[in-house]
Amino acid sequence: MKKPYLLTSLLPLLAALLAAAPPATVLTNVRQYRQRHEHELLADYTRLLAIPNVAADTAGLRRTAATIADMMRQRGIGQVRLLPATTPGVPPAVYGEVRVPGATRTIVFYAHYDGQPVNAAQWAPGLSPFQPTLASGSLASGGKLLPPLAPGTPINPDWRIYARGSSDDKAGVMAIIAGYQALAQSGGRPTANLKFFFEGEEEAGSPHLAELLARHRDLLKSDLWIICDGPVHQSGRKQVVFGARGDVNVALTVYGPRRPLHSGHYGNWAPNPAMSLARLLGSMKDSTGRVTIAGFYDDVVPLTATEQEALKRIPNIDDDIRRELGFARPDGAGQSLVELLNQPSLNINGMRSANVGPQAANVIPTTAEAVLDLRLVLGNDYQRQLAKVVHQGFFVTHAEPTDAERARYPRIVRVTPATGYNAQRTAMDLPLARSVVRAVQTTVSQPIVLLPTSGGSLPLYVFRQELGATTLTVPVANYDNNQHAENENIRLGNLWDGMETMAALMTMK
Amino acid sequence: MKKPYLLTSLLPLLAALLAAAPPATVLTNVRQYRQRHEHELLADYTRLLAIPNVAADTAGLRRTAATIADMMRQRGIGQVRLLPATTPGVPPAVYGEVRVPGATRTIVFYAHYDGQPVNAAQWAPGLSPFQPTLASGSLASGGKLLPPLAPGTPINPDWRIYARGSSDDKAGVMAIIAGYQALAQSGGRPTANLKFFFEGEEEAGSPHLAELLARHRDLLKSDLWIICDGPVHQSGRKQVVFGARGDVNVALTVYGPRRPLHSGHYGNWAPNPAMSLARLLGSMKDSTGRVTIAGFYDDVVPLTATEQEALKRIPNIDDDIRRELGFARPDGAGQSLVELLNQPSLNINGMRSANVGPQAANVIPTTAEAVLDLRLVLGNDYQRQLAKVVHQGFFVTHAEPTDAERARYPRIVRVTPATGYNAQRTAMDLPLARSVVRAVQTTVSQPIVLLPTSGGSLPLYVFRQELGATTLTVPVANYDNNQHAENENIRLGNLWDGMETMAALMTMK
Repeated sequence: MKKPYLLTSLLPLLAALLAAAPPATVLTNVRQYRQRHEHELLADYTRLLAIPNVAADTAGLRRTAATIADMMRQRGIGQVRLLPATTPGVPPAVYGEVRVPGATRTIVFYAHYDGQPVNAAQWAPGLSPFQPTLASGSLASGGKLLPPLAPGTPINPDWRIYARGSSDDKAGVMAIIAGYQALAQSGGRPTANLKFFFEGEEEAGSPHLAELLARHRDLLKSDLWIICDGPVHQSGRKQVVFGARGDVNVALTVYGPRRPLHSGHYGNWAPNPAMSLARLLGSMKDSTGRVTIAGFYDDVVPLTATEQEALKRIPNIDDDIRRELGFARPDGAGQSLVELLNQPSLNINGMRSANVGPQAANVIPTTAEAVLDLRLVLGNDYQRQLAKVVHQGFFVTHAEPTDAERARYPRIVRVTPATGYNAQRTAMDLPLARSVVRAVQTTVSQPIVLLPTSGGSLPLYVFRQELGATTLTVPVANYDNNQHAENENIRLGNLWDGMETMAALMTMK
Repeated sequence: MKKPYLLTSLLPLLAALLAAAPPATVLTNVRQYRQRHEHELLADYTRLLAIPNVAADTAGLRRTAATIADMMRQRGIGQVRLLPATTPGVPPAVYGEVRVPGATRTIVFYAHYDGQPVNAAQWAPGLSPFQPTLASGSLASGGKLLPPLAPGTPINPDWRIYARGSSDDKAGVMAIIAGYQALAQSGGRPTANLKFFFEGEEEAGSPHLAELLARHRDLLKSDLWIICDGPVHQSGRKQVVFGARGDVNVALTVYGPRRPLHSGHYGNWAPNPAMSLARLLGSMKDSTGRVTIAGFYDDVVPLTATEQEALKRIPNIDDDIRRELGFARPDGAGQSLVELLNQPSLNINGMRSANVGPQAANVIPTTAEAVLDLRLVLGNDYQRQLAKVVHQGFFVTHAEPTDAERARYPRIVRVTPATGYNAQRTAMDLPLARSVVRAVQTTVSQPIVLLPTSGGSLPLYVFRQELGATTLTVPVANYDNNQHAENENIRLGNLWDGMETMAALMTMK
């Protein structure tokens, strides 16, 4: 803490940590139940992971949803059903609920059961995306594959299971329903009505989430959504995330001559679109990575004093990650990663003009393309932010330029925006937010991390827009889980800890 | 002519045009011979075009060389043989000679018999690279395919033959040997000893040309090489080209994080190599396309007054080409295409980082690559020019960066230069150069184009280096010949005109 006097505004939050948590015995019982049933829990989870859950495999997604519904019924969750969207063929959400007599609050627990696409050939030898495999640790750090588990073998929490979805986000589904199982089976009683909503299209960009929420608005009434998705902090500490950046992509195409030209016969004279694009992109940032587009940082709602102090309390792991990733100097002129994640960003996702490598030829290319990713924070509007990236000196079109446009404008850029969405951030000092922080903190002795906004994006605005809902994200997976890539895995200890986190939230005051 | 007083230094050259040309009757006889034999000449050329001549088809190249040797023998050319390189398996050069008693000069006529690779699927319907097909004009401008030619049908000089190599550069081979045929058969007599040298590896970059020339140095002794390759001027006028730009390629790779990162969780903090490359490339040129790299235009040997005046006499077709190519403003701040082709150039051949289009993902890429093409003019050294493109603020390496380099240098670029070669330019006022200009000018009434340097590159420096040779390039093909691409063609009138050009050179004073 560089500036301890700023701490004053965090004091109510810190004080709250000492009050109104679930009784320690409830969590002790949950932990003991889990310790006694680790083999069964692992077998259940392995069966779930073995079912393919990628968008391209609709039969696999249906089996995944049906299996989760069965697992919920077996655990005594009521009203279990598949919620269809209005559009035919959309993977349904899996719904269930636990009514608690006398409860005055309703909490919906959200996770998603679909996973990222897989390319089995890219997985490490001995691994296959839907053949869940145990390892003695992270394979990237020297862990070794383990043989199938013999009955009675003690289970090490540092072991991993490798499978698509093992962290993102069947881990969310499992932590929620197994957390409820452990709570209910060990004599605990939720302090709120519980609802469960497991989505099947998150990795496809949740294209029908708004439709699903709108269609089932009455059923989904609640005081709070707990979003169980993503990793805990890189330091290993649990975290509560109060919001997520918004996101919008835009493709840019810059035009040169109508046909590829011999770079000898026309080089120096015919304008090169790759150079034009390089100059355009290069003009968007300074050497520290700060965006130089006029007004880019306008509209941003500043972090509150509470949020600023929360940032300062987050363990700084920047140097460790930087070394691991192999670069000497981060962008941001000395600001920390978490500070920078609370600002809007502009990233080049990809860039292409003609060919490099063996296919490169001595040509002046006809076009040059880039795809940009703009992350947004509270206050940004994704369409307004896109409009700022319109370019001085360029004629902007949304279609292939016409002959007349080519003849008239020296520099032409075609702008193709994708659909985007805005950021969402829940205030840290909402009473419900404080309750959540208290509940998660009771499960661990180390201070948990309070992150005002995650760098990555979640369509939290959809919950706000369709239901007026308050959302808080409470992740369980390990940070090094290879989410979205080959060799996805979860550390078993994170799954066990996640069950306790979810049980704590179900019993919070 | 904006500045007529500059003309003075061209006057000797212009005066020379009126003197010492081959007698008009010789060229009249050549033309009449051709007119009487167009059907046979076309049949001969069609047979030659039907033989595959791509690098991948060594049997085809051997048949092409053997067929050309036979055609030379049939036309009375002596000493015909295949000249092998020292390296086994290299396509041989085809050699022949005509000794002229009393001649004091020896001229070698050069063309190449190999063609660019083909992708038959890309050719227009009804065309195939090695099934030569007649058309009533350029297919791109409304020409139609013609049925096989019936005997006695008058042949229109605007017709085209479509086939790989029809312009580049079997046209050179045919114009030379058929030009000699028409000369010899119509009673003309060369004024110099003639040698013929047809290369078989030009489109592969002439990797064994130096070896071939060195091995056969004595045989190839001469006063002048006439390089018959490339197109005439875009205006349709014949041209003599006094030199060619040199050329060198270089690949640049800029490094970001060691693995692709989620652009949400790390965007604004982890440096993006695509942005870094864009800033690097964008810093190399100003908005008019002028290279801003320190010293880039140093070393250039300025054009002589004669060469400057020659440039001014070249018909300016810039606006026509610009409109055809569909862009509003050329680079070069108002300088003409031919002026700019006499300067060194820096072109981005291709650029790539991660993916665009449907494969684009929200990532911070690990690398970004570009391939540059540097054209060189007289005075540039290709290695010195490459060294200028080394980059302020970047650590330059020639290998994958090590962990220690990654940890130490904020910006790393890997530079991979290809082999290059320097420019070559023959002085316009050499007596032999004046003779060549005179000879070509006698074949047409319109002023021919004198081009100090072609924008494209030829390894003319190899002839200079290995043999101390003087080279002049006298092309015959039409400008719109689709050289190096699908639907390559030659306008028959260009072949006929080319025969006259070659006969004029064989009989020049």
